[in-house]
Amino acid sequence: MAHMKFKFETLNAFCNEAFKKFGFTEEESKTITDVLLLSDIYGIESHGMQRLSRYHKGIEKGLIKVDAKPEVVFETPVSAVIEGHDGMGQLIAKKAMELCIEKAKTTGMAIVTVRNSNHYGIAGYYAKMAADEGLMGMSFTNSEAIMVPTFASKAMLGSNPIAVAMPAKPYPFFFDASTTVVTRGKLEMYRKAEKELPNGWALDKDGKPSTDAPDVLDNIVNKVGGGIMPLGGSTEQLGSHKGYGYGMLCEIFCSIFSQGMTSNHTHIGGKGGTCHGFMAIDPKVFGDPKDIEEHFSTFLQELRDAPKAEGQARIYTHGEKEVEATKDRMENGIGVDIKTVLEMKDLSEYVGVDFKKYFGDINFEDVNYQSVY
Amino acid sequence: MAHMKFKFETLNAFCNEAFKKFGFTEEESKTITDVLLLSDIYGIESHGMQRLSRYHKGIEKGLIKVDAKPEVVFETPVSAVIEGHDGMGQLIAKKAMELCIEKAKTTGMAIVTVRNSNHYGIAGYYAKMAADEGLMGMSFTNSEAIMVPTFASKAMLGSNPIAVAMPAKPYPFFFDASTTVVTRGKLEMYRKAEKELPNGWALDKDGKPSTDAPDVLDNIVNKVGGGIMPLGGSTEQLGSHKGYGYGMLCEIFCSIFSQGMTSNHTHIGGKGGTCHGFMAIDPKVFGDPKDIEEHFSTFLQELRDAPKAEGQARIYTHGEKEVEATKDRMENGIGVDIKTVLEMKDLSEYVGVDFKKYFGDINFEDVNYQSVY
Repeated sequence: MAHMKFKFETLNAFCNEAFKKFGFTEEESKTITDVLLLSDIYGIESHGMQRLSRYHKGIEKGLIKVDAKPEVVFETPVSAVIEGHDGMGQLIAKKAMELCIEKAKTTGMAIVTVRNSNHYGIAGYYAKMAADEGLMGMSFTNSEAIMVPTFASKAMLGSNPIAVAMPAKPYPFFFDASTTVVTRGKLEMYRKAEKELPNGWALDKDGKPSTDAPDVLDNIVNKVGGGIMPLGGSTEQLGSHKGYGYGMLCEIFCSIFSQGMTSNHTHIGGKGGTCHGFMAIDPKVFGDPKDIEEHFSTFLQELRDAPKAEGQARIYTHGEKEVEATKDRMENGIGVDIKTVLEMKDLSEYVGVDFKKYFGDINFEDVNYQSVY
Repeated sequence: MAHMKFKFETLNAFCNEAFKKFGFTEEESKTITDVLLLSDIYGIESHGMQRLSRYHKGIEKGLIKVDAKPEVVFETPVSAVIEGHDGMGQLIAKKAMELCIEKAKTTGMAIVTVRNSNHYGIAGYYAKMAADEGLMGMSFTNSEAIMVPTFASKAMLGSNPIAVAMPAKPYPFFFDASTTVVTRGKLEMYRKAEKELPNGWALDKDGKPSTDAPDVLDNIVNKVGGGIMPLGGSTEQLGSHKGYGYGMLCEIFCSIFSQGMTSNHTHIGGKGGTCHGFMAIDPKVFGDPKDIEEHFSTFLQELRDAPKAEGQARIYTHGEKEVEATKDRMENGIGVDIKTVLEMKDLSEYVGVDFKKYFGDINFEDVNYQSVY
């Protein structure tokens, strides 16, 4: 797994130019870039530069419509339904969470649900938007079907992440996780690294355990069966039905409330159809927000201070690794798999960006690779 | 594992009398009994009669105050904070969800959070209350610390279930699951059955995997370390940090919003301190509730109809097993472990109920057992 390191500023400038070349405005390009790079600086490599190819191919194939503008089609003081018109997920999602935050600040809490969008990057970005405004934020999205429900052999739900962010000291609580054991992005990284998958992650097209990343990814893309296990694995003994249940909760906030496409219907016949859900809650509806933040921060510190398991030096609270990764990436650069860099070169050629201006001469001679998208 | 079978009506009459003898009113006794028996008829044996001893000992030790009345201490149109005054969990929780439903019907959505309560039975009972009124309902509770966070050796969070219920045809969606791999009640059942725990459930006091139910339960009660793993196990590879994260989400709705005790502080020094959280959402804030229900029901049917894994005959949607268990238990009776029946006899003697009137002469001679509470 050959990794190259780039400065945040380089990737930031490159992405901004690339998205402008795709036809997005300066402000839109900045939003999309912000979401992608937050993932990379948070150490979530699967959803940053690694995913550029997905957006490139999505736009190329007409799945993502560059000019689409999200439209509020149903609204109450505590809620809204947004029709995405197949636009870029990040732009629709940001607008949706902004509306959700505005409503929650007025009424105390709000939910905004979205249909006919596209992949929106890391779920946590939007939950964090609420936390940055002093609120508790949640963000949900469905996706192409990758989760195989308990006792099934075919993927029927998406990776269906649930993200939660909330103000705390010394850093906010930030939890962002798929309800599958791992995300598809993780499988893509294993494919690039030509590594076998660990046991307990994936199923082949007959619903049997598999460690073959390229095969599982091909099956997901071709919708022939198999996929990724729910959190808790594939048997009830370790709680497969629970991961599947949290995946359903996500689906309710996304495709059910918005009356959009459930995961099993998205990404068929040149249509994305992704749905999202956003919730914001103002802690002032339960008391003094400062008291609540202090109470929460105390608990988080108690967790970090708890006795460690043998061989473990630290207990992390959610959001702590992201703070440390940010410090590291801003100081030492962002690592990108050379195969991802090749995807970035392909994208540059497609859209007309001077790749060398940003990255100089890179030797791709030994890189034999084809994007999964 | 010797099980006896009793009619629903017998257990119902017995519990109602027992709780009245404890000092609860007729209506209160009915509520407590309803919650416990819903668990048994839903096939969730761990939280029905199996838990009577917990309430018996809780009242005996003064942890649960029979006369306490829940009090709304903070309120907005979309929210309330309830002080439980150490009352019976089921009574406080029912009142809290009633208030939450009433608010949600007016404003579209609401959250009610509770502090200083006690164990409230199955989380799903209260989520179901909302679904019975046409709303989407969620129910959360913390508990004595039993979940060992990723890389810790000491339990710091509760079983922290998240329950979700929502109208659907032919039966409502009903998902009720601890964010630990299993609940403490399941360990209690294994202890009664004198069976080894499966791998991947529990940790000993040093944070190492354990299959010894009595030892793990003793350690939980004595707070000397160890406990149950989060959903996803004890390593990040299979998603331990995710189960821990959902446990944190539960804690936010319960102890953080209510500014009550976090799980690690409850059940110390003769004080319960359990916190709950309830949310209700009226689907009308997203469109026509009938359309939303139909859309959801279609997806649930598609899940049941999906291709099955090798060797599997059915894919269940959440709530389906409960419907079938109810039919079975109402027709064929409710199975109760003889050790639980012995606990019911002890309770009868303590509170002054004629045990024989309900259950006749039972030979407990071979039953050598001591309640964990």
